[in-house]
Amino acid sequence: VVDRLDQSQTPFLSALRHCAQRPQAAFYAPGHKRGQGAPVRLRELLGEGALRADLPELTELDNLFAPEGVIFQAQTLAAEAFGAEQTWFLANGSTCGLEAAILAVCDPQDKILVPRNVHRSVVAGLVLAGARPVFMEPEYSPALGLALGIPAETVAAALAHHPDIKAVLVVSPTYHGIGSDLEAIAAIAHAHGIPLLVDEAHGPHVAFHPALPTPALRQGADLVVQSTHKVLAALSQASMLHVQGNRINRDRLHAALQLTQSTSPNSLLLASLDAARHQMATEGEALLSDTLALAQTLRERLDALPGLRVISPQDVSPYASVRDLDTTRITVDVADLGITGLEADEILNDTLGVTVELPELRHLTLIVSLGNTAADVGHCLNGFRQLADPSRSPAHTSDPSALTSFLTHAAYPSQPSTLAALSPRDAFFAPTATLSAAEAIGHLSAETLSAYPPGIPTVMAGETITAAALAHLTTVAQQGGYITGASDPTLRTLKVIRA
Amino acid sequence: VVDRLDQSQTPFLSALRHCAQRPQAAFYAPGHKRGQGAPVRLRELLGEGALRADLPELTELDNLFAPEGVIFQAQTLAAEAFGAEQTWFLANGSTCGLEAAILAVCDPQDKILVPRNVHRSVVAGLVLAGARPVFMEPEYSPALGLALGIPAETVAAALAHHPDIKAVLVVSPTYHGIGSDLEAIAAIAHAHGIPLLVDEAHGPHVAFHPALPTPALRQGADLVVQSTHKVLAALSQASMLHVQGNRINRDRLHAALQLTQSTSPNSLLLASLDAARHQMATEGEALLSDTLALAQTLRERLDALPGLRVISPQDVSPYASVRDLDTTRITVDVADLGITGLEADEILNDTLGVTVELPELRHLTLIVSLGNTAADVGHCLNGFRQLADPSRSPAHTSDPSALTSFLTHAAYPSQPSTLAALSPRDAFFAPTATLSAAEAIGHLSAETLSAYPPGIPTVMAGETITAAALAHLTTVAQQGGYITGASDPTLRTLKVIRA
Repeated sequence: VVDRLDQSQTPFLSALRHCAQRPQAAFYAPGHKRGQGAPVRLRELLGEGALRADLPELTELDNLFAPEGVIFQAQTLAAEAFGAEQTWFLANGSTCGLEAAILAVCDPQDKILVPRNVHRSVVAGLVLAGARPVFMEPEYSPALGLALGIPAETVAAALAHHPDIKAVLVVSPTYHGIGSDLEAIAAIAHAHGIPLLVDEAHGPHVAFHPALPTPALRQGADLVVQSTHKVLAALSQASMLHVQGNRINRDRLHAALQLTQSTSPNSLLLASLDAARHQMATEGEALLSDTLALAQTLRERLDALPGLRVISPQDVSPYASVRDLDTTRITVDVADLGITGLEADEILNDTLGVTVELPELRHLTLIVSLGNTAADVGHCLNGFRQLADPSRSPAHTSDPSALTSFLTHAAYPSQPSTLAALSPRDAFFAPTATLSAAEAIGHLSAETLSAYPPGIPTVMAGETITAAALAHLTTVAQQGGYITGASDPTLRTLKVIRA
Repeated sequence: VVDRLDQSQTPFLSALRHCAQRPQAAFYAPGHKRGQGAPVRLRELLGEGALRADLPELTELDNLFAPEGVIFQAQTLAAEAFGAEQTWFLANGSTCGLEAAILAVCDPQDKILVPRNVHRSVVAGLVLAGARPVFMEPEYSPALGLALGIPAETVAAALAHHPDIKAVLVVSPTYHGIGSDLEAIAAIAHAHGIPLLVDEAHGPHVAFHPALPTPALRQGADLVVQSTHKVLAALSQASMLHVQGNRINRDRLHAALQLTQSTSPNSLLLASLDAARHQMATEGEALLSDTLALAQTLRERLDALPGLRVISPQDVSPYASVRDLDTTRITVDVADLGITGLEADEILNDTLGVTVELPELRHLTLIVSLGNTAADVGHCLNGFRQLADPSRSPAHTSDPSALTSFLTHAAYPSQPSTLAALSPRDAFFAPTATLSAAEAIGHLSAETLSAYPPGIPTVMAGETITAAALAHLTTVAQQGGYITGASDPTLRTLKVIRA
């Protein structure tokens, strides 16, 4: 009989509250000294409480990199709640977790199988580790205009073709909430004797309600990174990394996590992870039932508005690569409104008081979470109703040629499922030249260029710059999206690898 | 005539406050949705204000990795205030800044000149970049038991011996507040055509008062990393990186900073940097005058207590490597009390309500900052008075042999100023074996072992494990310090590189 832990405890948060409240003459960092020296504007913004609790690694607060006290206890509770054997709190977002995961499983020049539509933090991990990505294509639905899951056969084929691949990394659920069949993928990876790493940044909540996608750990993943802040109640940049089984060298992972995080981790971030775990462990299913119901209402009513189409479980379930859809993630196709998702986002945000998570050329994706209320849903419907109103001013309407171009162009330009010409690390360190965009076509890129959001690379460093990829990025930039990774964000010039 | 910027503005903080206050239906991350879904315990700890302001990279809040709005403006103001040409806000501490700096100036296998007593975040940067450190010894004072500055002649000699070194990195001021003669070191580096990088983590305040050490930028440093949180009013983990001149490839630096930071940077951290800059630019000199006066009072009164000795400017100024001492950093030698600094720290913290920044075997170091009050100083003196009271219970007194051992053993074990056997990166990826501590002596370490605080490596990965180094670490661990980087924090076993 395994004793259950007491999930009503919040060891780190409680210790932090105690330290913040006791009187103490503080001669340590941070310099504001429990808020005493905080600037007026910062105090007005944050309040006294947050400043008092911004404390360093006092003895009572344990040490994130050698945990044996309250951080160890909090992480142990999190491991139980999320279904892991061991959990690490992350103060530098899922970015640092994915980077450390790659550093833990790949030696320099090792191959790792990753989806083409991987987040740029994985590319950062490839640069740091010196691993060579073998890219695989997610299934793509031209009808929906969306990348879906990773077919298990794609993984099997890639491993057959590259038997020296050291790990498989899959993003599931995706930004759009689509879960792959990780169980099948894990079985394939394990049959090859290699681990399955899952970027579950968008699924920190899935373990706490049966109507949500099956958690990666329950499907056999060896290592899982979750953005606790994205969907649960942690502060931005606070994430978790979970491990089970013996395919991950945990010492090396622990060492790698010290390479990718500040040696002064912020206590508010860590406390928010402890609180988010506590909330889920003690009332997660009830809260998520409410969230699911709220999302269902919003889905149905948005879908009923003219010109809008909500991607439904029925839309995606026929595809082989799709195991499940997180219905709290709502993707709205706005193409029939005759405007881009970026334009729709601007109108909603600037004039209608509604802000979505992810505007793309054709879609808007909304995160419905435990923080949303019925009032939010009402405001949202109001906003979309006005957006969809045929009498709305056409001031933002794109010209038809731009619309045609983005509607016929896949969001993630297709690339053969092979090794990049140059590894991301070699590309990072290679000598570069700056060329005009037109001249750059056909050269190897020195930059990883991503439309943000979602931060998924369109051109990876070390890949050939194609006219199609450049057109996609230029369109996004012109429509008001950001391009990250570019030395010249206007894309008039690009950095290429000097031949 | 160059127009001065309006330093009374806080572009990022003000935009964040605006976004936090306006009504909005939020369908983006973070999941707590402006605090609406925050767990009760987190709300009680932080307050509503901080939660409302925990917002993602909304359009109005710019993008840290492609800044062109309020983050660009806030960074431009910071550059002016801190005396740089360009400034980057950092959400992953000085760690990510130092790592990016090394990635920006070193290709794999390149040599970089670093002090032996470098912070472990620099070692992390060496691992990530694959650079090979050439170590140089700081000047060491046996009388004071302290490492001091880096003599300019040491830099000159190292560059003469290794003309292919690509950059020089110096820590100044040190944890103990000691500033090196960076002007002379910069001149030597620049004569070799290479940049000087300065880890000024402990000196974010020095630009704002003439009685503080001369800022690295004013002495000609090319790149400077500052822990704005350690001494000024930013939140823990919020730092800045400053650059001037043309010896740093800024595009590559910018790209490297995207490798070492979360793609979901926390807005509270960024706002606190904006506020800390504003505070310094508008009232820094007056605030620091008060801080200096407070520190002076504390120095004099602590020094007057029996058995305590405060390291003074007069103590360190005779040494050639020392240019200046930050007198707001107070290092107290407790050896004459017959207890270790770690024991003194425990007594002060646990029973006397005083917590210092850095306990070491022989010293305690205090940070006096703008957040400290006269009341803090009073409490501190009270605490130390009781600590120094000869009638105090001897319960914590060490045995004399341990005392002798630590007093005769340099805090940073001496190493020849040469290349390590294995680069930190090669060591990180090398196959390892676990040996007992006794067996491990003579092997190359697979781990970078640091006593924390201060986080300065005693054994670097790739270096031979010596009995002396192991004895130092074991003593620190036994006296209640943390050992970070160790797979077995008790040091009963160590990971070595498999031959």
